[in-house]
Amino acid sequence: MATFMDVHTGMKGITSEQLMAAHKADLAIEKEEGVHFKQAWADPESGTVYCLSEGPSADAVRRIHERTGHPADSILPVPVMVS
Amino acid sequence: MATFMDVHTGMKGITSEQLMAAHKADLAIEKEEGVHFKQAWADPESGTVYCLSEGPSADAVRRIHERTGHPADSILPVPVMVS
Repeated sequence: MATFMDVHTGMKGITSEQLMAAHKADLAIEKEEGVHFKQAWADPESGTVYCLSEGPSADAVRRIHERTGHPADSILPVPVMVS
Repeated sequence: MATFMDVHTGMKGITSEQLMAAHKADLAIEKEEGVHFKQAWADPESGTVYCLSEGPSADAVRRIHERTGHPADSILPVPVMVS
């Protein structure tokens, strides 16, 4: 399993309710790709959303986001982390 | 206090040790701006680093990163989040 950070743009005005709904849609089908979406952060003013996930590949993450209707602009593996 | 996600580029080849050293440098002076750096994730291949922080303003976050020698390319407030 690897860790990924993906970025979405064009989501200006996104609310907490909308981010939670998008996140729940991902959670509902993520197991089909062996992915787990862990955290997400949004800036409604610029319309940028960051999602942190774990999964077997960036393509697996990409497929879940595409199927739930919010394709990512970029998905990068982030194997190096501190927390 | 607000939450921020900042992005650094141009850090190709960054190692766990280098990310930890950069993070510790930030932690050492962050209180001077009322900032706290919580998590960081890096993709050594593309040279991209994401940092999650809390603080009074994006400028406060920017000043800490600048003083420790790794200025951010972008710093966005992320008031909407799920985890």
